[in-house]
Amino acid sequence: MTIKVLQTLIETKKYKSIHEVLSEYNSVDLSELLSKLDESDRVLVFRMLDKQKAAEVFSYMDNDLRQSLIKTFTKQEIGNIINEMFADDAVDFLNDMPSNVVTQLLENVSHETRESINHLLGYSQDSVGSVMTSEFIKLKPNMTVRQALNKIREIGLDSETVYTCYVVDKRKLIGIVTAKDLMINDESVLLTDLINTKYISVHTNDDKEKVANLFRKYDLIAIPVVDSENCIVGIVTFDDAIDVLTEETTEDMQKMAAMTANDEQYLKTSVWKHAKNRIVWLLVLMFSATITGIITRYESAFAVVPLLVSFIPMLMDTGGNCGSQSSTLVIRGLAVEELNFSDTFKIMWKEFRVSLLVGGALSLANGLRIMLMYRDIKLSIVVSLSLLGTIIISKIVGSVLPIAAKRFRLDPAIMAAPIITTIVDTFSIVIYFQIATIAFNL
Amino acid sequence: MTIKVLQTLIETKKYKSIHEVLSEYNSVDLSELLSKLDESDRVLVFRMLDKQKAAEVFSYMDNDLRQSLIKTFTKQEIGNIINEMFADDAVDFLNDMPSNVVTQLLENVSHETRESINHLLGYSQDSVGSVMTSEFIKLKPNMTVRQALNKIREIGLDSETVYTCYVVDKRKLIGIVTAKDLMINDESVLLTDLINTKYISVHTNDDKEKVANLFRKYDLIAIPVVDSENCIVGIVTFDDAIDVLTEETTEDMQKMAAMTANDEQYLKTSVWKHAKNRIVWLLVLMFSATITGIITRYESAFAVVPLLVSFIPMLMDTGGNCGSQSSTLVIRGLAVEELNFSDTFKIMWKEFRVSLLVGGALSLANGLRIMLMYRDIKLSIVVSLSLLGTIIISKIVGSVLPIAAKRFRLDPAIMAAPIITTIVDTFSIVIYFQIATIAFNL
Repeated sequence: MTIKVLQTLIETKKYKSIHEVLSEYNSVDLSELLSKLDESDRVLVFRMLDKQKAAEVFSYMDNDLRQSLIKTFTKQEIGNIINEMFADDAVDFLNDMPSNVVTQLLENVSHETRESINHLLGYSQDSVGSVMTSEFIKLKPNMTVRQALNKIREIGLDSETVYTCYVVDKRKLIGIVTAKDLMINDESVLLTDLINTKYISVHTNDDKEKVANLFRKYDLIAIPVVDSENCIVGIVTFDDAIDVLTEETTEDMQKMAAMTANDEQYLKTSVWKHAKNRIVWLLVLMFSATITGIITRYESAFAVVPLLVSFIPMLMDTGGNCGSQSSTLVIRGLAVEELNFSDTFKIMWKEFRVSLLVGGALSLANGLRIMLMYRDIKLSIVVSLSLLGTIIISKIVGSVLPIAAKRFRLDPAIMAAPIITTIVDTFSIVIYFQIATIAFNL
Repeated sequence: MTIKVLQTLIETKKYKSIHEVLSEYNSVDLSELLSKLDESDRVLVFRMLDKQKAAEVFSYMDNDLRQSLIKTFTKQEIGNIINEMFADDAVDFLNDMPSNVVTQLLENVSHETRESINHLLGYSQDSVGSVMTSEFIKLKPNMTVRQALNKIREIGLDSETVYTCYVVDKRKLIGIVTAKDLMINDESVLLTDLINTKYISVHTNDDKEKVANLFRKYDLIAIPVVDSENCIVGIVTFDDAIDVLTEETTEDMQKMAAMTANDEQYLKTSVWKHAKNRIVWLLVLMFSATITGIITRYESAFAVVPLLVSFIPMLMDTGGNCGSQSSTLVIRGLAVEELNFSDTFKIMWKEFRVSLLVGGALSLANGLRIMLMYRDIKLSIVVSLSLLGTIIISKIVGSVLPIAAKRFRLDPAIMAAPIITTIVDTFSIVIYFQIATIAFNL
């Protein structure tokens, strides 16, 4: 159904048809559809959704859209939506609201919902606690498959994640039973015979990147979150893990391009905020680049051989590119937990050999070009040697700095192209003019 | 259990204890454990695993480990492992073998397995077909819940993905039924009453990035793959989608750092291959950077005011950084389908305003620095104006090129820092010396 059809149905007040069509749509596409309606139509259509669907659609909306929608709602109506939302989605929504509004809204939700939301609101934005949900299926070890299925039927409708059930004894998590176990076994079998006690779990305060990497490694649908006494307090589901991976990667890329990480969408971010996120690093890098002002020390060199200046951009760019190749590989390797600190020397040794090959090939190509263009052997050798030296240093610096950052508990992603380039530029200019000074007796 | 305990058990030939301990371990950790044993022990332990577990552990090993393991196996033994593997994992394994070996191995697997593997081997590496598996649960619309559960019990043990079942009529996919539907409904209910016909599906030849983005958007556990006649030929599961997302992001980052994409692990890639992946782009960029040799046109300028040369690195670096900030945001926005071609003008307008703010701030800071250091108003204005011009151009070029690449069906990721820097360098040098020439009457 296109947006036009929906608009026509609204104009002609065909409410029954609208209702029918809406019920067939999934929540993701519905929230997209609603974003394209104008405000009054949006409220109208939203109110026609049944309670649970409305909460789901609301979860998938972005913040601006939610704000515009709830302007016309009473606190009680908003409370009803929150009651129907998954706790983690509700927390996402409330995190974007002023805290006095949050307090007012929470007065209108059920005692149970309020408790779990308040609990989740307490976790830091980077922790597993902030992405977990408190809806999951708790079973007892002495239940039969039949009793377990009955329990799921009773509370299952509200829970997206009935596929891994958690067997709890005196509040402690003792193991998991999968929906598959329940489906393929006889109804009289006891859960104690099905339970898997070698489960993977995380703690509430673990970094959310850690839990996302566990999903990547173990192909799980959900991972239980336990507190320090191994009591289960929530679960993280694979879809949240995909969101965390996407978000962390975006943040890594932003940091690698010398920006402050920002999880808002590009077009939704204001010009001011865009500028703010970019200026700090640019200023730092700009002032660092003035170190390359040491170039003036070699004033006499480029006064005598002005052609020397023309190779500066090529040397600087090639050094920067070589360094950022190495740093990118190492940063990504660290992020997906393929590399770690103990690999430092293996990485350095590999980069050194790669830099000899790459440096050799590029120096040769560049040396030949200079010979052909300027017929000057000395110039050709000076530039080629400088290029080789620059490439070796770039690759070593580019590979070591991200690991060093990780070691000092900094984000390796900041040790990417921009900083590496600035550092390598200085090296390349010093190498270049030192070699030139000797060769041309300046 | 640490590797040492396992080694001791092997040395003391405590086979029964080994067997017990192994059965409690999950396949991911077991494959890691096996990688740390020496070759003969590894074969010994692997042979102690039961058939299905052995196949799973084998799936999680990397290629080198698999090769070393199967050296001592007969073709028949390898065939048995392949029979037990999921078809998509088997294809991954076979793709790394020489084609004559593949033919020999396939002679030793069941007719059914051979057919589905041959089918999957036919899809291109970038297509959905290459990541789908042919194991899934097919149901008929006139079945009851009881019959469906019986069918799952019968074939379910082999299938990781019983949680979404596919209702098929005359080979055509007509809808899906979830395991949750089967669990919470009465056994006599007909599937026709539970079926969801508004499912999301993909075609075998769709790009695998497309299906991965559908998982990101719709939070699904599995997506059916259909052919041109809407017959279901396989499914893609969320864990494969996480792998595709990880792989695509790694490839994007590699391309953004001017490398040929490579999905091998860093330490497993040979020095030669590392060098080969990096040299081509470096050569292209190095020769492009020689365009900035136009700097020699301004020889007279820096002969008269040698200080001018000292600001070149700062200008070039800042331009490069500004451009790569913009290109990174746009490349990532395109990859997660948050931005698309129709946003081009919105993006340009936003980047223009951001560049005024960023350029203004940086020019001011830099102008003040030059005033303080050199007490030369003219120099300060020349450098600041050049900086402002460079930043505006960098941000526009950096944001537009990735979109243009996408439009021409190139990968936007290649329009990242390295190319942007090379292009922007030329602009910044021309702007700088044109302004300087006028200001200093050179």
